[in-house]
This record gives sequence, C-alpha cells and structure tokens, in this order.
Amino acid sequence: MDLGSIIGVVLGLALIGGSILLEGSILTFYNLPSILIVIGGTIAGLFVAYPMNKVKAAFNVAQKAFKGGSINYQESINQIVEIANVARREGLLALEEAASKIDDDFLKKGIMLIVDGTDPELVRNILETELAFIDERHGEGRSIFDALGAFAPAFGMIGTLIGLINMLQSLEDPTSVGPKMSVALITTFYGAVLANLVFIPIATKLKLRSKEEMLIKEVMVEGLLSIQAGENPRIIEVKLESFLPPSMRKGLEDSSEGAEG
Amino acid sequence: MDLGSIIGVVLGLALIGGSILLEGSILTFYNLPSILIVIGGTIAGLFVAYPMNKVKAAFNVAQKAFKGGSINYQESINQIVEIANVARREGLLALEEAASKIDDDFLKKGIMLIVDGTDPELVRNILETELAFIDERHGEGRSIFDALGAFAPAFGMIGTLIGLINMLQSLEDPTSVGPKMSVALITTFYGAVLANLVFIPIATKLKLRSKEEMLIKEVMVEGLLSIQAGENPRIIEVKLESFLPPSMRKGLEDSSEGAEG
Amino acid sequence: MDLGSIIGVVLGLALIGGSILLEGSILTFYNLPSILIVIGGTIAGLFVAYPMNKVKAAFNVAQKAFKGGSINYQESINQIVEIANVARREGLLALEEAASKIDDDFLKKGIMLIVDGTDPELVRNILETELAFIDERHGEGRSIFDALGAFAPAFGMIGTLIGLINMLQSLEDPTSVGPKMSVALITTFYGAVLANLVFIPIATKLKLRSKEEMLIKEVMVEGLLSIQAGENPRIIEVKLESFLPPSMRKGLEDSSEGAEG
Amino acid sequence: MDLGSIIGVVLGLALIGGSILLEGSILTFYNLPSILIVIGGTIAGLFVAYPMNKVKAAFNVAQKAFKGGSINYQESINQIVEIANVARREGLLALEEAASKIDDDFLKKGIMLIVDGTDPELVRNILETELAFIDERHGEGRSIFDALGAFAPAFGMIGTLIGLINMLQSLEDPTSVGPKMSVALITTFYGAVLANLVFIPIATKLKLRSKEEMLIKEVMVEGLLSIQAGENPRIIEVKLESFLPPSMRKGLEDSSEGAEG
Amino acid sequence: MDLGSIIGVVLGLALIGGSILLEGSILTFYNLPSILIVIGGTIAGLFVAYPMNKVKAAFNVAQKAFKGGSINYQESINQIVEIANVARREGLLALEEAASKIDDDFLKKGIMLIVDGTDPELVRNILETELAFIDERHGEGRSIFDALGAFAPAFGMIGTLIGLINMLQSLEDPTSVGPKMSVALITTFYGAVLANLVFIPIATKLKLRSKEEMLIKEVMVEGLLSIQAGENPRIIEVKLESFLPPSMRKGLEDSSEGAEG
Repeated sequence: MDLGSIIGVVLGLALIGGSILLEGSILTFYNLPSILIVIGGTIAGLFVAYPMNKVKAAFNVAQKAFKGGSINYQESINQIVEIANVARREGLLALEEAASKIDDDFLKKGIMLIVDGTDPELVRNILETELAFIDERHGEGRSIFDALGAFAPAFGMIGTLIGLINMLQSLEDPTSVGPKMSVALITTFYGAVLANLVFIPIATKLKLRSKEEMLIKEVMVEGLLSIQAGENPRIIEVKLESFLPPSMRKGLEDSSEGAEG
Repeated sequence: MDLGSIIGVVLGLALIGGSILLEGSILTFYNLPSILIVIGGTIAGLFVAYPMNKVKAAFNVAQKAFKGGSINYQESINQIVEIANVARREGLLALEEAASKIDDDFLKKGIMLIVDGTDPELVRNILETELAFIDERHGEGRSIFDALGAFAPAFGMIGTLIGLINMLQSLEDPTSVGPKMSVALITTFYGAVLANLVFIPIATKLKLRSKEEMLIKEVMVEGLLSIQAGENPRIIEVKLESFLPPSMRKGLEDSSEGAEG
Repeated sequence: MDLGSIIGVVLGLALIGGSILLEGSILTFYNLPSILIVIGGTIAGLFVAYPMNKVKAAFNVAQKAFKGGSINYQESINQIVEIANVARREGLLALEEAASKIDDDFLKKGIMLIVDGTDPELVRNILETELAFIDERHGEGRSIFDALGAFAPAFGMIGTLIGLINMLQSLEDPTSVGPKMSVALITTFYGAVLANLVFIPIATKLKLRSKEEMLIKEVMVEGLLSIQAGENPRIIEVKLESFLPPSMRKGLEDSSEGAEG
Repeated sequence: MDLGSIIGVVLGLALIGGSILLEGSILTFYNLPSILIVIGGTIAGLFVAYPMNKVKAAFNVAQKAFKGGSINYQESINQIVEIANVARREGLLALEEAASKIDDDFLKKGIMLIVDGTDPELVRNILETELAFIDERHGEGRSIFDALGAFAPAFGMIGTLIGLINMLQSLEDPTSVGPKMSVALITTFYGAVLANLVFIPIATKLKLRSKEEMLIKEVMVEGLLSIQAGENPRIIEVKLESFLPPSMRKGLEDSSEGAEG
Repeated sequence: MDLGSIIGVVLGLALIGGSILLEGSILTFYNLPSILIVIGGTIAGLFVAYPMNKVKAAFNVAQKAFKGGSINYQESINQIVEIANVARREGLLALEEAASKIDDDFLKKGIMLIVDGTDPELVRNILETELAFIDERHGEGRSIFDALGAFAPAFGMIGTLIGLINMLQSLEDPTSVGPKMSVALITTFYGAVLANLVFIPIATKLKLRSKEEMLIKEVMVEGLLSIQAGENPRIIEVKLESFLPPSMRKGLEDSSEGAEG
C-alpha cells in the first residue's frame, strides 16, 4: 500500500484536528447532515455524470494505484531479456512455456501473439491499441477524481447556503445566529478538506502512476518486437534501458544523473 | 432510460430536501421569482448564445444519450461479421437486402455505398466526413450544457444581487432584513444546485456517451472497408475486437483485464 | 436579424426587470455613475488591449453575424453546381460573365483565378491563405467579446469597491449605510448582467457563426478546384454534399439523421 | 506612440476618478502603504519568477510595442519588390549596397546571407530559427504581463487581509472600524485597477502586436527566398500580397473585404 | 545563487512586514497553529499527490535551478567547437581523453557514444530519449510547485473556516469576536503570501530555467552529431550559434537585436 498517501492523509487530518482542538472541540465539527450533504451530493453528482460501471472501474484503478507500490522497471527489463534469451536458445515456440510463468497479462498476451506467428506489424497494432485503451481507461479514472474534487466544494457551498437561508428566516433569537452560522460553514469546511486532502491529490497521483505504467508497457512492446525480430538479447537490454530515465538505470549512473537534473 | 442519472438526481434532491427539513421547511426554499430568474435567465443567455435549431438539437442529443442505455459493442460486431458472411457467400450485391434489416443508419448508409460499387477510398472519405460531423454535433451539444452550467450560477448571483440591492434600499424594518436576505440567497442556491446536480454532470455524461458512439462507428467503418475488400469474416472479427477495450471482448478476458488496469 | 438573440436579451431583461419590480422599483437600479464606470471602464480596458481598427472590425463582424440570418448551404452548392454546368458547356473562360452575377466575394475571386488560368496548386494556396485570414479575423472578433465579458464584471467590482470605500469612510449616519451599500452593489450587478446576458453569449454565437462560414467557404474551395479540374457537375454535387452534416442535405435524409445523433 | 492605449488608460482613470468624486474625495483613495504593498509585492513576485534580464527585456518589448505604431505591410512588400528589381537588374551581389540602406535588421541579415551565397535551405533554416526565437522572446514578454495581471490582485488581497487582521485585533473604538476597513479595501481596489486597466490589456495588445510582427517577418522570409531563386519581381509581389488579409492589400479590395468578413 | 529570487522574497517580506508595522505589530501576525495548518496541510496534500521520491527530486531540481546561475551558452558552444577541433586533428578516438575533462554528464555521454562508434541514428535516438526524460522530470518538478501554489491558499481557507466555525460557536463574549476573527484570517494570509511570493513564482522560474537547459542540450546534440559526421569546426560554430537568440551571440549583434525585438 502507498505509504506516502497514508502519511499525507493522516498528517493532514491530525493537523486539522489539532488546530480544531486548540480553540474548540472535535464535536463542534461533527455534523451528520453536513456529512450527508457533502458526501451524498458529491456521489449524486457522480452518478449523474458517470455510468455506474465507469465509477466502479475508477475506484478499482485508484485502489490498485495505491496498493501496487512503485513499478520495478529494472525487473521488467530483466524479465524481457530473459525471455529474449530463451527465444534465442530454444526458438520462438519455446516461449509458450515461458509465458505461462508471467504475471503481467499485457506481456503474456504479447508473447502469445509472437508464439502464434502473428505478423510483426499486426503485433504492434494490437498491443498499441491495447495500450491506448489502458491509457483511456486511466484517463477516465482520473477525470472521475477531478470531478469529485469539483463536486465536493460545490456541494459544501450548497450545504452552507441551505444553512444560511434557514438561519436568516428566523432571526428572532439572536443568540442562535452564531452557532447556526457555524454549523452552516461546516459543510464548506468538509467540501474543502475532501477536495484538497483527498480527491485532487489522488487525481494527481493517478496521473503519475498512469504515466509510469504506460512507460513500462511501451518498454514491453519494444522488447517484444525486438524478440520477434530475433535481436541479440544484450542489444535488447541496452535499447530498453535507454527508455528509462537515468535514475532508473542500473545503480551506476545515479550519481551522475543528479548533476544533470 | 439511464438509471444512474435518475438515481443521482433523485438522491441529490432527497439529500438536499432532507437537509432543509432538519432545520426549516421546504416552503422556505420555494420562491417563484427566484426560479424564474435562474431558469429564465439561463434560457435567455442560451438563446443569445445559440441558434434555436442548435438548442433543440442539443436537447435531442441529451435525451437520446439518456434513453439509449449502454451501447452493445459485441452485438454490433456480430452484426458486421454476419454481413461479412453474407457478402462472402452471396456477393456484395446481396447486401442490399441485408441492409434493409439494419436499424443503424450509419451502417446502412455504408452498406449501400458498397452495394453501389463506390470506390473504397471514397467510401472511407464519405463515412469519415460523416463521423466528423456527428462528433462535431455531439461537441455542440456538450458545449450547450457546459454553457448552461456556467449561466445558471451567474444568474443565481444576479438574482441574489437584485434581492440584496432591494433589501439594502429599505432597512427601516430590521426584522425584515433576515428573511429578505434569505430569499435573496435562494437564487444562488438554485443556480448552484442546477449547475452541479444537472448541467455539469450531464455535460460530462454526454462526453462519455459520445466517445462510446464514435468508437462503435469507427469499428463499423473498419468493418465495412474489410467487407468491401473481401476479407475473411473470421479475420474481420478478430480485427474489430482489437478495437474494443479488453473488458468489452467476449467474456473470457474480463478477469485478466482487471489485473492490468 | 438574428431572432433568437433578440428574444434572449429581451427575455433576460424582462425577467430581471420583473424580478426587480416584485420588491422594489426599477429606479433603484438606475444609477448613471454605475453605468459610466462599468461601460466606460470596459471600453477603456478594450482601448488599451486592442488597436482601434480591430475593435471597429470586431463590431462589424458581430453586426454581420447577427444580421445575416442562417447560411443557406444548399443554395451555395446549387450555385457552384450551376457554375460547373456553365464551365462544362461553354468552357472555363465563359465563367467570367457568370462571376459578375455572384454576390459572394470569395467565390467570385476564386472564379476569376480560374478564368485567369492560374495554376490549380496556386489557386488552392491563395484561397486557403484567404480562408486562414478570415478565420483569424473572426477569432479576433470573438476574443474581443471574450475580453468584454471579462472586463465588465471586473469593472463592476471596481465600482463596488469605490462605493464601499467611500461609504466606510463616513459611517456617522447609520441610516445611510444601507442605501449606499445598495448603490455600490449596482455596479457589480451591471457587470454581471452585461457579461452573462450580452458579451459571453455573443462570443459563443460568433464562434458558431464563424464555424458555419468556414464550412461553406471550404465547400467553395473544393467546388472551384473540381470545376477547374473539369469534373462532372453531378459528381461535384455529390462530393460537396458529403461535406454537409446530414441534416443540411436535401430534405430526404433529415429523419434518418435524427436516429444517428 | 500608441494612441488607443493612452486614451484607454486616461479614460479609465478619469471615469474611476469621476466616480470617486461623486461621493467622496480623491484623497480617500490615496494611501501610500497600499500603493507600496500592491506595486512592491507585484514587483517582488516578478523578481522571484523571472530573471532580471527577462524582466528588462519584457519592458523593452512592451515599450516598443506601444511606440512603434502600426506596421506598414504594404511598405515592407514594396521594399522587398524593389530589392528583387535590383537583384534582377544587377545580380545578387549588388544587394550588398542595397542592404546598407535597410533599417530592419532581420531583412538586412537575410540579404547578407543571400549575398554570401548561402545555400537556400540554410537561409530558410537560419531565418526561421531566428523567427522562432523572436516569437519566443515576445511570448516571454507577454507571459510577464500575464503574471503581473495575476500578482497585482493577489497582493491587493494580501494588503486587504493585513488591514483586516490589524483592524480586528483592536475593535475597542467602534468609530474607527469603518475608516480602517475602508483603507484595507484600497489595496484590493489598486490591485483590481492595475490588473484590469493596465497589465491584462497590455498582455493582450502585446499578443496582437507580436502576431503582426511575425506575419511581416514571414512575408520577408518568403520574399528573400524568391529573390534568391531569381523569380520575377512582379510575381513576387503577387505572392507576398496573398499573405496579407484583404484589407491590407492595395486600396482596391477594401470594400469587398467588408462583405466577406 | 539566484540573486533576483532572493531580492524578490526579501523585498516582498519587507513590504509586507512594513505594511503590518504601520498599524499593528508583527506579533499579531505570528500564529503557530496557523503556520502548522497552512504549511502542514500543504505538505500533507503533497504527500497524497506525489510519491516521496518525486517530491525529493522536485526540491533538488528547484535548488539547482536557483543555485546554478545563468547558463553560459557561448561557453558551451566554444567547448563543442574545441572538441570538434580535436576530432578533426586527432580522430574520433582521441575524444575519449577530451571527454574525461568535461563536467556536463550529458555531453560526456554523447562523446562516449561517438567514441564507441555507435550508429549516428542511434546516437540521436539515445540522446533525444534522454532529453525527453530530463524535460519530463523538469515538468514534474514544476507541477509540484504548481500544486503547492494551489494547496497553500486552499489550506489557508480551511484554517480560516476552522477559526470561524470555532468562533461562531461561542459568541457570548462579544469583545473576543474581533481578535478571534483576526486570528482566523491569518491562515488565509499565510496561504496567499506563500502561494504568490514563493510557490507560483518558483514554478514560473523553473519553467524558464528548464527551457534554457533544454536549449543548450539541443545545441549539444546538434554539435555532437556534426562532430560525428566530421563537419568543419568553423561551420559547426556558425550552425550552433544560429540556435541562440541574437542577444546570446557574440557581443557584436546585441545592439541590432534591440531594434528587432
């Protein structure tokens, strides 16, 4: 699970909680109707905007993004080089067995296409179409979190407007004005916290994760096509590594990269 | 009809209604002049911005988007493959009869072009021009809902300004200040709810629907050209399916797709 | 003159007027200094931002957009087909006489280029350069209305700030606070109405009109080049119609288009 | 010097001044600390954001944009045609003398490249690289005014916050609340006027000026290459004029252009 | 270290400090909980949005951008020309020794590729892939400062909401309202100062620095390929200088450049 995100949310909530406790009590900030209108309204907007299957898919994507940890590029490259070695020694047909041990479905699919003797141009087309759809699906996931980040403050403001309108209707008791206004502002507060501590940052993180995943899959496509072309495994390795940013290459270049950044 | 959107709007209104009832009464939030100025002003802005025929078209597009349910990609592909089989067995001219049984006007038009012996390059040009115009018409529909989502809060604010200016003119009776301000805020409330629960989410949904429709029509163009070229129906099927995201392909790959997302 | 826009502005003003009359009087909302600062400030900003000739051109463009009514695509295509017939029967040189009866300067210029025996590639270049400049000029017109839509609320706010700062300087007479604040808010009100009922919607309409005009001019370019190439008038007609969205083609296809949208 | 911009700023300030005088005195709106915090803060932000040489360059660019008056396209074209005549009559080497009488450094440089017998492809490359850098330098100039238009209101708000925080700390004397709040709002007022009457409009004007300058320089590149290719001066003239919008061509077409717009 | 940025931040803080001192005391504006919630909340949002290694990298990039001073283009070009001379006189293999004296890792890597006899096309590919990744890494650095510039005011507002909600809960003591509201506003103040004096300007400066660095590296790629192709060192110099904006070329052209800008 993604440590940074957990630390971030916990740290943010702790700071907000501490800041509340300095002057008041956490109870002041607990208001069930406010929670219902911000979270419920945000979900309602989401249901109007997105088909249910997209919403489900977006949360799956988000969950995986946070669970997966960082992608190990070097390991993927090693795997491809190993496959290239097998192909060199035992021929393309021997890859069928190798494919069965691979976890990544994208890589596995690519190998099966090679084993089936598919035309190289078609292999590239099929894999890149697949890549384009994975990218689009990721894009939809991000756009859902962007939408959440816009709906939450909007419904926060709607909740505050409801509170203010109700309060202003009955001003007979002046002592109740403050607390009522206070409660009205709580929905705005919820909306702002949800958007800025959860939805917007998650949308950003999904974007980064998606870029990383696309990079490794592009490396795979390049590797698979090189294997099919019967290139030398050592040359394949050099070629694939040039796809990686210097800091991700084998240890040696890390220090020099710092000087370029 | 699109279930998610109905659930979303009903859920949103229920939450807002419940939230109102906790402290006040629904009647407080009913204000005919406010409704007139928000809805009327939004419509007025729309009339200045868009020719009437575009507005009518946009609502048609929206209605269809919500009525149509999800697009069944697999069914469309099956239909094309079936047509390919007919063409293989009985020749391109036999497609005239097949075309008469097809509901989709775009597909029907494409088949008629083939039956007429139109040059393949021209078939592609005509269908892609058509596609570009469908996309543009969808884009206009979306832009109208985007505009509604911007006009509604603007006229909500204009209504509130009118209320405030009127109220501030005559402050003699201090007890009337609260209720008048309350009424003034109702237009802002209407504008915010309309924009965030209806117009903005609908604009988003239209965008998604349009993308899906463009995808299936691109599949049709590809399929029609393959039929005209006399390709093997089985190969056509494989080719068209590679256009679909893995989750839309025949059942088998659904589970593996999850792992890639 | 563009009926929708007139209806829109009148409807918007009537709603706003009616809404004002419910609680106060129109006179409350008439304030000459506020009008001066919003309209004058907006014009001042415009003068700093745009050379005077561009401003004049923008208002010409806007005026024409509202006067012209919808473009009749079918009529333009008929005209081109007729020219093609003349060219077929009597040769390209006979077009000189035909050109003299044509209102559209763009089309006329194109025909004259053909009559002069200009190289087809150069005809295309000259007409497309012309097209690019018409598009850019339209773009400038739109950008001026976009700027007006941004300046109006900004100077509305500046006017309100002036009123508030003046009022806060002299609070001795508490009964004057309300009316003064009321007057201060009127500039914000003017800015918001001008922007949302006039400038922003006009910018949108100009964009749509410009797209339509570019489309018909692109059809003309294609038609002129086909005429120069000596193509069959009937084929030219089919070709040009494929440029139009289905709903603009000869009556027959209107109903089917609905099903595709 | 650019008349429109001066008229705009003077008109805007006169309207604002008049509007102030109606209710208060100009002195109320003079507040040295507010001026310092808005202008000083904006400059401070600028220093953090841009290296000093860029800031200096941006003000040079702006100054020149306002000083230069409109570009005379026709005159530039005449100049190029004249050079083409010289080249025709006396050969390319004779251009060296002609170059010495030319003010425009870009044109002069281009001629020298031709005189030096540089390869046409290289001439184009060098001139277009130069063009790209002029465009980028202009873009940086604009971006600096865009930044100023964003910093000014931000520091206006920061100044107002400082005033409010100070005022709220010591509410003992209720009669001082109004004037203090009034002074606090002055910084917001300064920021809004500076941004909307000066910085944002200047950024817009720079954009238009830059476009005009790029256009005339593109005409020069085209003309220089035609001269080098030894084309007929008359044909060069026709070719270069097709680069201009109709309204900029020799008088005759002005009226017809109006009908197209 | 970057002098302009230091002057900017110091100037900005001095102005803000001076402005505070005119009416109140600096102590009024010191509030530890406010600092914690703005800075802490911003960092928390950052942790959710970006993996820790990216955050660390962004600060490295920023630090270097401010430390490095301006890039000396002319010196880099001289260096490349010198290498070209060595290659001419002593052959490509002699470059290995020259490479050892070069600080820039990118240039060194390029030379080693040439020494190794790598295919020119591959050299270009590898260096441009590297360039693309440096650009992307810079882009991530900027996007982090953009995010900070958005989070800081958001958490400033959240802090103010907390203060207001707490204050409104207990209005019994009217004399405490002012000071409490004052404190509540301090977080908004912190957020606005941090965003507008630090984060947003730094994001802008990083963008400019990155552009400069990309330019010099593109010059290097071009130079290396010319060296590998065995071009004349003098021609290489002319070619590389045409990449630079006129003001960066050898002294002579500075004055003329001013006239073009």
